[in-house]
Amino acid sequence: MPPSITILPLGTASAVPSLTRNHSSLAVILPSSSTLIFDVGEGTQHRIQRFPLKLNKVEKIFITHLHGDHVFGLCPLLATLMNGAGGTADPDADPRTHDADAPPTKPRIEIYGPKGLREYIRAGLTLTYTHLGDWYVVHELHFPHDAPSDPTEHCYLKEHPSGTNIPQDPQGFWRDFAAWTHPAHGNVEFTISAAEIKHSVPSVGYVLTESPRPGKIPRDYAARISKHKEALQRSGHENPMKFLGLLQAWDCPEDAALELPDGTRLTKPPRVRGRKITVLGDTCDPSPIIPLAEYSDVLVHEATNAFLPGLDPATKGTETYEAVEERTKSRGHSTPEMAGRFAHAINSRYKDDDADGPDGAAKKIMVRIGVCAMGSWMTATGSSEGLRVTCARDGVPIEVKG
Amino acid sequence: MPPSITILPLGTASAVPSLTRNHSSLAVILPSSSTLIFDVGEGTQHRIQRFPLKLNKVEKIFITHLHGDHVFGLCPLLATLMNGAGGTADPDADPRTHDADAPPTKPRIEIYGPKGLREYIRAGLTLTYTHLGDWYVVHELHFPHDAPSDPTEHCYLKEHPSGTNIPQDPQGFWRDFAAWTHPAHGNVEFTISAAEIKHSVPSVGYVLTESPRPGKIPRDYAARISKHKEALQRSGHENPMKFLGLLQAWDCPEDAALELPDGTRLTKPPRVRGRKITVLGDTCDPSPIIPLAEYSDVLVHEATNAFLPGLDPATKGTETYEAVEERTKSRGHSTPEMAGRFAHAINSRYKDDDADGPDGAAKKIMVRIGVCAMGSWMTATGSSEGLRVTCARDGVPIEVKG
Repeated sequence: MPPSITILPLGTASAVPSLTRNHSSLAVILPSSSTLIFDVGEGTQHRIQRFPLKLNKVEKIFITHLHGDHVFGLCPLLATLMNGAGGTADPDADPRTHDADAPPTKPRIEIYGPKGLREYIRAGLTLTYTHLGDWYVVHELHFPHDAPSDPTEHCYLKEHPSGTNIPQDPQGFWRDFAAWTHPAHGNVEFTISAAEIKHSVPSVGYVLTESPRPGKIPRDYAARISKHKEALQRSGHENPMKFLGLLQAWDCPEDAALELPDGTRLTKPPRVRGRKITVLGDTCDPSPIIPLAEYSDVLVHEATNAFLPGLDPATKGTETYEAVEERTKSRGHSTPEMAGRFAHAINSRYKDDDADGPDGAAKKIMVRIGVCAMGSWMTATGSSEGLRVTCARDGVPIEVKG
Repeated sequence: MPPSITILPLGTASAVPSLTRNHSSLAVILPSSSTLIFDVGEGTQHRIQRFPLKLNKVEKIFITHLHGDHVFGLCPLLATLMNGAGGTADPDADPRTHDADAPPTKPRIEIYGPKGLREYIRAGLTLTYTHLGDWYVVHELHFPHDAPSDPTEHCYLKEHPSGTNIPQDPQGFWRDFAAWTHPAHGNVEFTISAAEIKHSVPSVGYVLTESPRPGKIPRDYAARISKHKEALQRSGHENPMKFLGLLQAWDCPEDAALELPDGTRLTKPPRVRGRKITVLGDTCDPSPIIPLAEYSDVLVHEATNAFLPGLDPATKGTETYEAVEERTKSRGHSTPEMAGRFAHAINSRYKDDDADGPDGAAKKIMVRIGVCAMGSWMTATGSSEGLRVTCARDGVPIEVKG
């Protein structure tokens, strides 16, 4: 059983934070403990201090869109991650400026997001005289309508010159633009891709995909090899048990096989599909990402507004679900029912509903929001089979088992 | 007795926040409940939610310098103060763009600080598509070496066109650049001035000064008028008690007097000096502000590093106070002893030491920091008479009685 991936919601509120819910941010901790952060609302570093997340493991940051409640915490987080506070008016007087005049091969932090992100970070760091003690890089995911720009022009102090603008492919995706290799054997273990999701400003969703893993070795293989051990050794297999190790190797050839003296063959078990985690920011229509997000193990989806008559005292008597959905969409957001329908559209196995209640939201409301999402799934499938809805709460981790 | 002014520290940490101390921010609540905020580190709006501070009373924001730990919370606070989240990529599609095409006479929020502040806010709001629902204005305090710029050029959406660049006067001050009038009688009750304080980037300190108040009427005035009431009425004073009301009026002439039939004169008691509160940000040498800050009732002064042998386990055996002070100054900061000496230099009556301990700082350390500050005051004066040292803590208010 491979180790779990942990999804840790750092903030699940939208624009206005409450005492228990901060602005949007979510961490994904890979089995290697490499940590990815999706969106960085104001106060994200404060949340990280309270939660079991190691700052030195944060490697990559992904921004879904540039609304303030998703990025206002980014520059301060970079400052904390890279010893960046308190520069001087004259950069030449700061030792960090000269620490390493030549950039290292690999920057400390890699940041991905829509066009404008690079300029946002440059302005935020420059105008506050923030001199970082280590290097960062920005890769922008460009839409065809984005004006071309040279990413290496006007690099800020400690902005690594390897920054790129990644074009959308003809199918509308940014495929496998970042990858993680397995720390032991060096094969690609995870990749990340992105696609547009509709919102009031340019916005992308991210899909983290684990590579197919070696299949589980049938229980009887060891006993069967053991039974024929001496005969196998005589026919040239010095240590026939080594075959089991070969089957677990990522680069084991598909046709690997061991023929036993009784004429039967032990063959390589088929690879097991890896896990898939889809993280969406704010959206009223994520359909462009469906081809990438199909069969996700976890879908993180917002649900900003919900129709909760009898439960939400702000519901007017004449209000209908349709009116709430209409209004929610017009602001670029979703209802729990929309989130549930989308989970069905991608055949997600589990669905994690990043729902937002009013300040001091009662658990009742959260449960009801979950039921709304579940209801639209059940309407589509006729059953709740295969669906788990979690209303995310700041700091409550979700384990994605291998 | 006039109502208290309340000083509420919102954040007392420096660059790296802890669970109990946030980045720099401080509120001053005037008797009229008008609220001023000095510096806005990341997460200030989160602190305000926990503390008894009314967002709708926040009128003016003063920035001491543009380091990130003093301004990273400014754009998100503006968004929350003025309904600013979630704009669209096309501003014309947002109803707030058209709400009030003509700016109102007075913007909702006025912001003051060193050059660069206007551009910082513009960049932060523009690149995050933040469309505010109300107007703000930025007034920059310009040093003579600051490049001239037109404050009304390139105004951002809802940036009020009344923004100014305020030049330093020949004495090196920005005097009385903002004022508050008394809600009842309309006379100027408070003014604010600024001067440079030395730090690693351009930095100013602020001095809030209350106008002299009418003096207290001597206890025997009422009885003496009463004794001669009829004689006074005969000589033309229809209601001689009215004289007491005149003496309490802010615009009472200095030579106001009532001659009693026994030949004695009741004269206007001398005005009482108003309160004075000096708020400094980060500094290693605030001496340019001394002429403005003299006789402050409260001085808010940082003390980033302290020499605490035997108490701070990080103290090396060979360390000396002089070495700590030297290192602290080289980074643009102060020790508690420097803060205490400065309190003496301005003859402050009370001193509020905005001291910063390490994460989870024990109360012992805070007390010792206070003692360091007190020690340097006592060395200078030979007595602790007239000094009160408070080590500020987030959310613990300090009342400045009238």
